[in-house]
Formats: sequence, C-alpha cells, structure tokens
Amino acid sequence: MSHNTFGHLFRVTTWGESHGPAIGCVVDGCPPGIRFTQADIQAELDRRRPGQSRFVTQRREPDAVKILSGVLPDEDGETLITTGTPVSMLIENVDQRSKDYGEIAKRYRPGHADYTYETKYGLRDYRGGGRSSARETATRVAAGALARKVVPGMTVRAALVAMGEKEIDRANWTWDFIGDAENPFFTPDPKSVPVFTEYLDGIRKAGSSVGAVIEVVAEGVPAGLGAPVYAKLDQDICANLMSINAVKGVEIGNGFEAARITGEENADEMRMGNDGTPRFLSNNAGGILGGISTGEPIVARFAVKPTSSILTPRQSIDRDGNEVDVLTKGRHDPCVGIRAVPIAEAMVACAIADHYLRHRGQTGRI
Amino acid sequence: MSHNTFGHLFRVTTWGESHGPAIGCVVDGCPPGIRFTQADIQAELDRRRPGQSRFVTQRREPDAVKILSGVLPDEDGETLITTGTPVSMLIENVDQRSKDYGEIAKRYRPGHADYTYETKYGLRDYRGGGRSSARETATRVAAGALARKVVPGMTVRAALVAMGEKEIDRANWTWDFIGDAENPFFTPDPKSVPVFTEYLDGIRKAGSSVGAVIEVVAEGVPAGLGAPVYAKLDQDICANLMSINAVKGVEIGNGFEAARITGEENADEMRMGNDGTPRFLSNNAGGILGGISTGEPIVARFAVKPTSSILTPRQSIDRDGNEVDVLTKGRHDPCVGIRAVPIAEAMVACAIADHYLRHRGQTGRI
Amino acid sequence: MSHNTFGHLFRVTTWGESHGPAIGCVVDGCPPGIRFTQADIQAELDRRRPGQSRFVTQRREPDAVKILSGVLPDEDGETLITTGTPVSMLIENVDQRSKDYGEIAKRYRPGHADYTYETKYGLRDYRGGGRSSARETATRVAAGALARKVVPGMTVRAALVAMGEKEIDRANWTWDFIGDAENPFFTPDPKSVPVFTEYLDGIRKAGSSVGAVIEVVAEGVPAGLGAPVYAKLDQDICANLMSINAVKGVEIGNGFEAARITGEENADEMRMGNDGTPRFLSNNAGGILGGISTGEPIVARFAVKPTSSILTPRQSIDRDGNEVDVLTKGRHDPCVGIRAVPIAEAMVACAIADHYLRHRGQTGRI
Amino acid sequence: MSHNTFGHLFRVTTWGESHGPAIGCVVDGCPPGIRFTQADIQAELDRRRPGQSRFVTQRREPDAVKILSGVLPDEDGETLITTGTPVSMLIENVDQRSKDYGEIAKRYRPGHADYTYETKYGLRDYRGGGRSSARETATRVAAGALARKVVPGMTVRAALVAMGEKEIDRANWTWDFIGDAENPFFTPDPKSVPVFTEYLDGIRKAGSSVGAVIEVVAEGVPAGLGAPVYAKLDQDICANLMSINAVKGVEIGNGFEAARITGEENADEMRMGNDGTPRFLSNNAGGILGGISTGEPIVARFAVKPTSSILTPRQSIDRDGNEVDVLTKGRHDPCVGIRAVPIAEAMVACAIADHYLRHRGQTGRI
Repeated sequence: MSHNTFGHLFRVTTWGESHGPAIGCVVDGCPPGIRFTQADIQAELDRRRPGQSRFVTQRREPDAVKILSGVLPDEDGETLITTGTPVSMLIENVDQRSKDYGEIAKRYRPGHADYTYETKYGLRDYRGGGRSSARETATRVAAGALARKVVPGMTVRAALVAMGEKEIDRANWTWDFIGDAENPFFTPDPKSVPVFTEYLDGIRKAGSSVGAVIEVVAEGVPAGLGAPVYAKLDQDICANLMSINAVKGVEIGNGFEAARITGEENADEMRMGNDGTPRFLSNNAGGILGGISTGEPIVARFAVKPTSSILTPRQSIDRDGNEVDVLTKGRHDPCVGIRAVPIAEAMVACAIADHYLRHRGQTGRI
Repeated sequence: MSHNTFGHLFRVTTWGESHGPAIGCVVDGCPPGIRFTQADIQAELDRRRPGQSRFVTQRREPDAVKILSGVLPDEDGETLITTGTPVSMLIENVDQRSKDYGEIAKRYRPGHADYTYETKYGLRDYRGGGRSSARETATRVAAGALARKVVPGMTVRAALVAMGEKEIDRANWTWDFIGDAENPFFTPDPKSVPVFTEYLDGIRKAGSSVGAVIEVVAEGVPAGLGAPVYAKLDQDICANLMSINAVKGVEIGNGFEAARITGEENADEMRMGNDGTPRFLSNNAGGILGGISTGEPIVARFAVKPTSSILTPRQSIDRDGNEVDVLTKGRHDPCVGIRAVPIAEAMVACAIADHYLRHRGQTGRI
Repeated sequence: MSHNTFGHLFRVTTWGESHGPAIGCVVDGCPPGIRFTQADIQAELDRRRPGQSRFVTQRREPDAVKILSGVLPDEDGETLITTGTPVSMLIENVDQRSKDYGEIAKRYRPGHADYTYETKYGLRDYRGGGRSSARETATRVAAGALARKVVPGMTVRAALVAMGEKEIDRANWTWDFIGDAENPFFTPDPKSVPVFTEYLDGIRKAGSSVGAVIEVVAEGVPAGLGAPVYAKLDQDICANLMSINAVKGVEIGNGFEAARITGEENADEMRMGNDGTPRFLSNNAGGILGGISTGEPIVARFAVKPTSSILTPRQSIDRDGNEVDVLTKGRHDPCVGIRAVPIAEAMVACAIADHYLRHRGQTGRI
Repeated sequence: MSHNTFGHLFRVTTWGESHGPAIGCVVDGCPPGIRFTQADIQAELDRRRPGQSRFVTQRREPDAVKILSGVLPDEDGETLITTGTPVSMLIENVDQRSKDYGEIAKRYRPGHADYTYETKYGLRDYRGGGRSSARETATRVAAGALARKVVPGMTVRAALVAMGEKEIDRANWTWDFIGDAENPFFTPDPKSVPVFTEYLDGIRKAGSSVGAVIEVVAEGVPAGLGAPVYAKLDQDICANLMSINAVKGVEIGNGFEAARITGEENADEMRMGNDGTPRFLSNNAGGILGGISTGEPIVARFAVKPTSSILTPRQSIDRDGNEVDVLTKGRHDPCVGIRAVPIAEAMVACAIADHYLRHRGQTGRI
C-alpha cells in the first residue's frame, strides 16, 4: 500500500476531494476478459449513496459513474469487457453548496483530521474535509464492484451487527433482508429495525452521533489464498478495513473472543465431507489459518467510531493557537457506520481479488 | 507488504524456518549514521527468547545474533554505525532435536497452517511448522531493535493486559515492573502475577492453552506521521500486528469501545498547553486522527488466540484424506501471547520508523 | 514500477486509450506547498502536441488539461498549491474520427503491439492502438511538469541529435534555439534545420519513416541522489526512457563509447573548484557514479525506432492465421522521435524528483 | 525496484559488502515445487568466480554457496524442492587480505563511487568498495540460477561481443565455444581468442583497463510476457542490466541502429510457420513489441566501462578537500566486462521469471 494506492496485482488508486470537480479511481491489473456493465458498478454505488433515508447525510449526489478507459464495448452495446489495461472511473461532485469557509478553514474540528493534516502538510483542503471526506469511499465501492468479478464464485456481503449500545439478535440473521426497502440500516435482523429506528432518531434529534460494528462475510473463496508472513490474507483484509474512515478496530473469525478461551475450544476440527473434500467442523478461525484461506467463509468484523460532527460544542483550538469552541452544522450522518457496509464489502473483495491473482502468479494452482 | 517483506522506506525482509540451519532478516533503507551495538539487538532478542520460565516453550535457543553487513565499526570496536546499505542479521538454529517426522508430515494439526500451506503450495516444510513457526518472530525483534533508533526520542513499550479470562487492574499499571525478574508475564500489574501464575499453571498442567491481549504504547512520536488514505499509520500498525502468528484482532485507542459510545464522549477535545503547543484532553483516538499521528501516545491492542498445540486429541484429517486424531506432544507454550509482547513492540517500532522516513521524504518537515 | 505506475515516492499512474473519452494521470506523493499554474502544465503539453508542423501527425488535439484534485487555489485565483494528496489530471480526447475498424481489428500491423497485446490478453483495443498509442505520453508530460517543481534549481532539457542518417553538429549546440518557432525538430543546431527538413520531406513523401536519437540533460541536480544497487539513478532514468514507445536503446554519459576506450581516458578526474567545492574535470560518467548523482549534469541519450506505420505494404497475418499485407493509411509521424523530446524531459524529471524524495526520506540530508 | 530489492513476484534482495563476513541474497516469491541442487547454483557461481585466468582479478574466493531456507530435501538427499517460502543463500567472504585502509579511507578514487557514497550517506564502507564492489554480483548469479528454473523451456545465454577496440566476427558465432576451457573471454568467436589475448595482455601489462560489450539472448520465452506501459519487458530487462556495476548503455534488438534506418527496413514482417503458428521473418525488435514478448529470441546488449582501478595516477581529492593523485594497486580486472557475462544472464533470467509470474497472475493464460 502506498498513500493512495492499495493492492499488488489488483491495484486500486483513488483520488479526489469532496469539494473539487470530481473524484475517481484507477484499477490497474484487472484480468482481461471480465464482462460487466456500467449498471453493475452503479448498483453498488447506489447502495452507498447518501440521501436515501433520514439516517444518512442529506447531501444529494447522484454518484453517476463514468468509465473512461480499459474496456471494449461488446456487440450488445451494453456489456463492457476489460482489456487488461487500467480501468479509470470518475464520479462528478454535484452537490457542492458554496459557502464561506473562512471560519472552518482555521479551526480544527475535534475528532477530525484537520489538525493532523495541517501539521503534516503545512496546509489542508478545508473544503468538506478534503481527502479525509467520506466521499472518497465512493471510489472504493466502484473498484470493489470490479473486484467481485475477479474471483469466480465469490460472494462478499456485509451487515451492521451493532449500533451504539444496541445489537442485533444473530438468531434472526437473514441475508436477504439487508437489501429490503424497509431496512435503512443494512441490518440482517428484521426485528432490529424498530429498535435501531427509535434509538437513532433519538441520537439524530439530539444532534449527537453513535458508532457501529459491521461484519463482512466472503463465501466461495478458494483455499490457498494469502501468503506467509507479511502478506497474510487476514492482515491485508484488516489493513483494507482499517483504511476506511473512522474504523478503530478489526477482528477475524472469533477475534478478541479467541483471547478468552482455551485451545480445545478454539481449534476448528476437521473431517472429510460427504463430497470427499476436507471440511471444518467450526470456523473460529474466520476462514484463515496461518494467513491462508481454508475454503471456509472468511469472516471479519470492525468497529466504526461515532462521527465528531455533532451539534454539541466541543473545545478545540484554531490554526493561530486560539482556544475555540467548535460545533458542526449542516448535513451529517448520525451513524456513519451504516454506510460503511458496502464500503467494507468492496475493500474485502479487493483484498481477496488481489490475493487470488498473486496466488495464481506464484503457484499457477488456480 | 510483499510476502516476506514489510515497510516501504524502512524495509524488513525475513527468511528461514525453525528447523533449517538459520533464520534471519535484511533491513534495507535504514538511515546512515545510526549508532548501535550488537548488545542492543541481543538484549531485545533475549526478552523474546523461549526457555526462560516454565510458562514458555522449553526449546533452548541462545538466539545469538550475527550482524553480517551494512555497518562500519566505530573506533571503540564495539559501536556499529549504519552505512545506509542493507543490514543483514542472522540467528543460527541450535536446538533442533532430530526426530521422526513421518507421521506429522502427513497429518494436519487443527488450528495450524499445515492444511493451508499444503493446499497453497502442494507441499510444506513439516519440520517444526516451517515458515509459520513462532521462531520467525525472532528476526522481527532484531529488525525492531534497529527501528527504535530511527525515530529520535521514541519509546515503544508493550504489556500483557489479559490472559484468558483474567485481566489486569489498570489502576496498578507500572511500566517498570514489566522487566522485573519476578514477572514472567510482561504484565504491568504486580498484583496480577500470582493470579496469572495460578491460572496458567492450571492450563499448563491440563495440557491446554489460553489466549491473551497485549497493549502497545508508542510515546514520543511526532505529529504528522502517516498518510491518507491507504497509508494510514493505524492501518500499517494494525497490519504489522495482524502479521504476528495467532493474532485475531487489533484495535487503536478505545477501539471496539468507540462503537458503543456517542460522538460527544468520543471526541478528544483540544486546548493549548502551557508550553504553547496544542494538547489533547483525552486520547480515545489512540494518537492517530485521519491516519496521521497527533503527537499523543499511540495506543494499539491485539488479541492472540490460544495455540492449538495441546495434549487433548482433536479430530483432523491427513494428506491422504484419512480421518485421524491429533495431539501435540513436546515443547510448547501454554500462552503464546506472552512472548508476543517484545514482538509487538518491534512491529510497531518498524511501522513508525517507516512512516517517519516516508513523511520526511514527501514533506521535508522533520 | 507496476504496469501503469512508476516511481516510489513521487508516483505517477497513467490511464486511457487514444479512442476512449479521455486520458489522464494521477500524481501521488507530490510534496505539499508546491505552487504552479494550469498554464505551466499546459505549456509543456503544447510542446508535445501533434499537428504543429507537417512533420508530425495531423491529428488535432487541443490537449487541454484539467486539474481535478490535490490542489488549493491561492488567493490570486490562478496559482494552485499542492496539498500533498493525489493530483489527478485529465485530458479529453477530441479528435476521434469515427471509422470502420473491421479490418484493422483483425490484422496485426508489423512492428506494432497488435500481435503481442492480443496474445497476452486474448483481446485488444484495436481503436487507435489502445494503450500503446503515443497519445498516452501526453499524461507523462503533464506529470513531468509537476516533477520539475519538486527539485529546487533543477532544469531538464532535451534535444534531437540525430534523425536517421543525419546528425547535428555539436559545435553548434544552442539550447535556446530548441524553442524557436523556426525549429520543428527540437534540434539544438540551427544549421541542421534545412538538412533535416529536406531529409524528412523526402521520407514523408515516400510514405516512409525514420528513427532518431534524443539527448536529455538535467542540470542543478544535487549530488547524492540514487541508491545502490537496484535503485541506481541511471537505472531508473534508463527504465523511464525505455518505457517510452519505440525506444530501443539508452545510454548514460559517454554510453557505448565507454566500451571502446581505456580506464585512463574514461575516468573523470577531480579537483577542488574555486568555490571550495569538488568539481569534475570531465563528465564521461554523465553525472552518475555507482548509481548516485555527482552534482555534474546528468546526461542520457536514447534511440527511437522508425514507426512501422508506413505506406509501403508489409507482410503480416491476421487473427485467424491468414497471411495478409498491411499498410497504414491516415495520420502518422514520419519521425516519431521528434515528439519524444518533451516526453523524455518529463520522464527524466520524474525519475529525479522521485529520487530526491527518497534520498531525503532515508538520509534527511537535503 | 527498491534499493536492494528487484522484481515484483520473483523478488530478489541482496546484501553484503566485499570485506564483511559474508554476502547473500533472499529470493522471495519463487514458485513451490521447483527442483534443483546446490550444484546447479554453484555451477553458475563458478562461471563468475574470479581468479580463473590472468585476465580477471586474482582475488581467490571459493564462492561456496549455502542454501539456508525455503527448500525441502528430496529423498535422494541431493535434490532440493522449493517450498514457496524465501530461499536465503549465503556466500562467505574468505579472501579478505587485511590491510591498512587509512589512506584509501579518505581518498576518492576517480571513476568509483567513493565520492558519491560519502556525499549521499555522510560515511562509506571504504573496505573494498563496500556495497559497490563487484563482489555483490555473485549473489545475483545465485538468484539467477533459480530464476532459470521458473520458466519452462527457457534458455538464457550471453557472450562478450566486443572488448575495447576489438570486436568479434558474428559469422563465427558458436554458442558452445563459450564454455570452452580455452576461452577465458566468454567470446562466441573462436578466432577472437588470440586477438583478445594479445590485446588484453597489453592492457594488463600497462596497468590499464578496457571496456566491453556483452550480448544476452533468451530463447524459449513464451509470447505475452511484459505489460504496458511502465512494466515493459524490455524496460525491466534494461533496468536489470543497468543495475550491474559499470554498465553505461543498454539496447534491445537492433537498438541504436534502429534510429538510423527506415520503417520499411526495421519492421519485422510476419507469416504463418509450417507448424501453424505465427513467425517473424526478422527480429529487429529483439523479441519484444510494445513491451511484450513476441516469442522470438529476446536480444539485449550492453556496454561496460573500463574500470578506473588502474596503475596510472589520476587526479582526485580527499575527504578533507585536499587535491591528491590516486592509483590503484592490488588485484583488479583489466576488463571487468568479461565477468559481466554470467551476471547478465542472471539478471535477464530474473526479469523474465518475474514477468512470467506476473503474466500468469493477471491473465491465467500460462
């Protein structure tokens, strides 16, 4: 990983700030011959798009993706075929309300990257958070939509499993419910919707914010992906998830719970399946042993902090060293974790696609 | 990161298996003019070395480091000065008890990487776990000892804060106690020693194993290290920690706790310090905002799973698809997390050293 | 370097085909605080732009650059200041004459990459050469315009020194003549203009093409850039130049001539200059010793082959294995080497800028 | 490439100075299951070894390679099988005549990297040239011996084609003669031996030195290796060759000659071969079009400068700014180009092996 690029063979470079003319990404190393449509990409972007319920920022961006390179149109005029050269995708910024940044330009919002960017670079793009804006994540989702096509048979899905003090009941887990029109939370538990609704309405009306925990599950990942010892699949998944704004922790499989139990309880035993292939009797490992995929579902979980963009004034300083109070007006998410769901899927899909190609490169065994 | 290399400007490549003639690392990109002694490196290795108490594996390895390149001896005959070229360090494997690997060579130990390595590569080094052996981590500690010297004024320390069901009392936190001769656990809480002793003796006698949670704290790290958006300092620290054997989860600052609280509670407010520099009134962020260091202590925590090398037989299969029971005799750690403490320090030191150089490269602001 | 990215700290990723909607580049790792104008970039692009004389392709592209990210406007409304985040630049493709590609799509043009792209990827973008089009080089020039600003005091200039059988007279070398309106060849020798004119008119009218040799000189490069042993400055300059379409050879300093002379003749002797700094009495080394810059001008030279897009039919095959004759109608350069001059400057500027940042990163000595 | 590492999937890291205890390399990313013997590696090292004729340095080094990791012994006890993990190879330095470096430590030898290393790093390993010693190249040869095994059916051979003012007669080219016991020059032209002998004896007795031109030919390389636009196969081959000490120029196919001829002459025409596969009627391209291999032999050529280690005093300065005269006593090569032959083969083999794996990774078409 290198500043604004991640991946080794499936490489994604993103660029753009929320208040410039556009944002975008370049996906390099994509295998040739992959067939997709612009609608495939757009559908993923639409899942992440703000403005779809009162629980996410009301910034209205169509997030219409343009595909600028790396593809040949098929004869049907709709399907695109990757040529193996870089796929450049661009999303215009439309809803940039002009305003006076005078005050914000100088003040450091607590919990934001204002102070650190300015300390690092000596200046910063104060317009909408610059590069640390959540808007950057749209380009990851576009790249992830391509990554999903790289590994045959792979499905990557994510779900919100906790919001602040509220958790889902895993007994009710229903993957199909996540895309339901009545589900503004990406929760897999239908019964959690009224609970989350009431809870988050309270948070929103108080001008407050709250964190969340998201779980990502990748199925259909062949055994053998990942490599010792600094290219472990779990390590790269973890790095990809940690790179998402506001993420403060990541775990694989049973994660921190593993620290609390014994080796007998934790070891996933093996038997031969009826189809003559090895199977695991449990999946505490989250589908990864020694950094290499086992063929079981890959399971990761991560924590998103509550955004510091809240209506309650917080103590801070400005660029000139004056002590000030900062409160954030305007359009913001009471729970930024909600929109992290499609982003997390994209980041995990990219990590696995990269390792799929790396494994094929080194071993030729796929 | 690339299989057996990590870091961009401060780059560490490690090699070797536990049952070959030696293991080692090459540290490339180290700044010239850094002064150190072989004893500095050895002291760190000795902290990680097995065989020092009944709670860690009784494999007896002197772990004597040889420095083969990249240094000039100073006139005192003891101090070495880095020349800016690769520092190659080698540790011979001494205590390789010869034995018949016939059976182990074919069986997949549950919870180990036997199955995944063999699936990936079509063969594996069955002697002592090959590349997935904990022995590999000695070379990280050697590299980390150099990394500590790269960032002026930086201190990186770690401590075991939980073992299985037992936790320390943070009110008793005493950094100096960690190196105490009466402390075989790297715990910072003197009162935890009898608790951990009794608990782990029980685990050991039962032929069982247990996990642990380790906390790493880096102090004296200048503000401005790390970079958006895929070279975040927390992301690289987490990736480095996740690359350690048996680690299943990582978090920064208040970590998963951040998902449970509100934005008001979580935001670290700022004021001007008496010395005219900015200070934070709390450090929920763990010293990193937007992926860039704030100047506050950097705090990371990670979970280590219990080793699957236990005396209770577990169900598994062998290479030929036969169902077998596996139990692990021989020298093993009841809590592998203990020895992860110096390894974690090394990995965090390497991540910060790398970002220190990268920051200086791009901005010239150090 | 990685497919469509080059550089380590000053990293350039380019994308786009000649017949898609646009081409572009992303410059990542640019130091913050660099001040430039869009006109600075455009001026370099205009030097490379086709359609400016009868000796270069008549494709009419305004090559107007758009700067989409990574900058803050200064108060004057014209100056842009880099923020340290990725600078994305985009150039729309305007002059895409629609035509029937049916025949070209199947035939492999001799001397072009048609056959190799299709063999590699199983398909190719037959429209205008796809990614191997000379049009891609415009994005390098845009990136190079930024690179020039990274190294204080550096000047990078190039000149055409030979065209087919004709060479300049080095005694007439006049850098200022290169930008002269009466000089369509980037030659530094005013007396060569009528010679080249007559020669190339003959080539052009015959529907033929011819190669060229270009020399690049970088002055004001501080001593100490580059690193042993696989990051030599000459090696990276060489790689950057070899990546330009149609380049078949590169040399540094006296290059191949060095193979013909003795050590006495070749060694550049040193003395102290009047200003108390070391100086070299000659520069056979081309400003680089042991891969590291000496402070003398860096001198590189490279050979460009004649384009195979000619009017004389050449034997070839098509995708189906039929033997065919191919000739290239339409807009093409009789000497593609001419337009390589600004491209070469850009590639050398990028290589040096990258090493400037890398050197600062590792050593802090700038 | 990154300081002391080259390659992306087949990655080679080298370390060590000529006067330290050892030198070595780590080959990471090697495919698993490759079978070789220590003798295979040693045979290549023996070809490069000094002290084999009066025309190469009389430093006596056995250059005995030790293989420390990354392999499993086969049942025959001799064959080694790569496991896919890093192969670490080490060569001890034996013939380090101790001497007083006092004077050399301060003086900058003209044409050597003394001045630039010291300017870059602020200090340097003055013992035997440190990292810029030709001794480092032994480790490349060891890595190259493995690389040769990665691409099935590939042969990489090199030959000295010119020495100073003397050239071979290509009409006499006999590959088999290169390994002949009567051929101390790696020349493919038997009739050149007496010519080179007399010429180089004169150079040697005069305490002088002379340059050389080497040609490398790789056969059996499948079409499709290499990638646009900054991972061109010719670019990576040239970079690898330029990284060899004293190399000042590289070319592919007809190289600089291409700049002098017309498109008609230069284009390699195609026809279908009798076996139903495409064939080229000539190979001016040197087996690479658009950066991608054509299936024809890959041909590269490079120029080696004469070493500056000569008996004639040359003007120079010392570290304190004093003007001094420097002459080099001791063991040195009158034509360092001779020993570049096996090194060049190794570097080309590594470049192709890397691209073989990268191509397989991205496209799965091998």
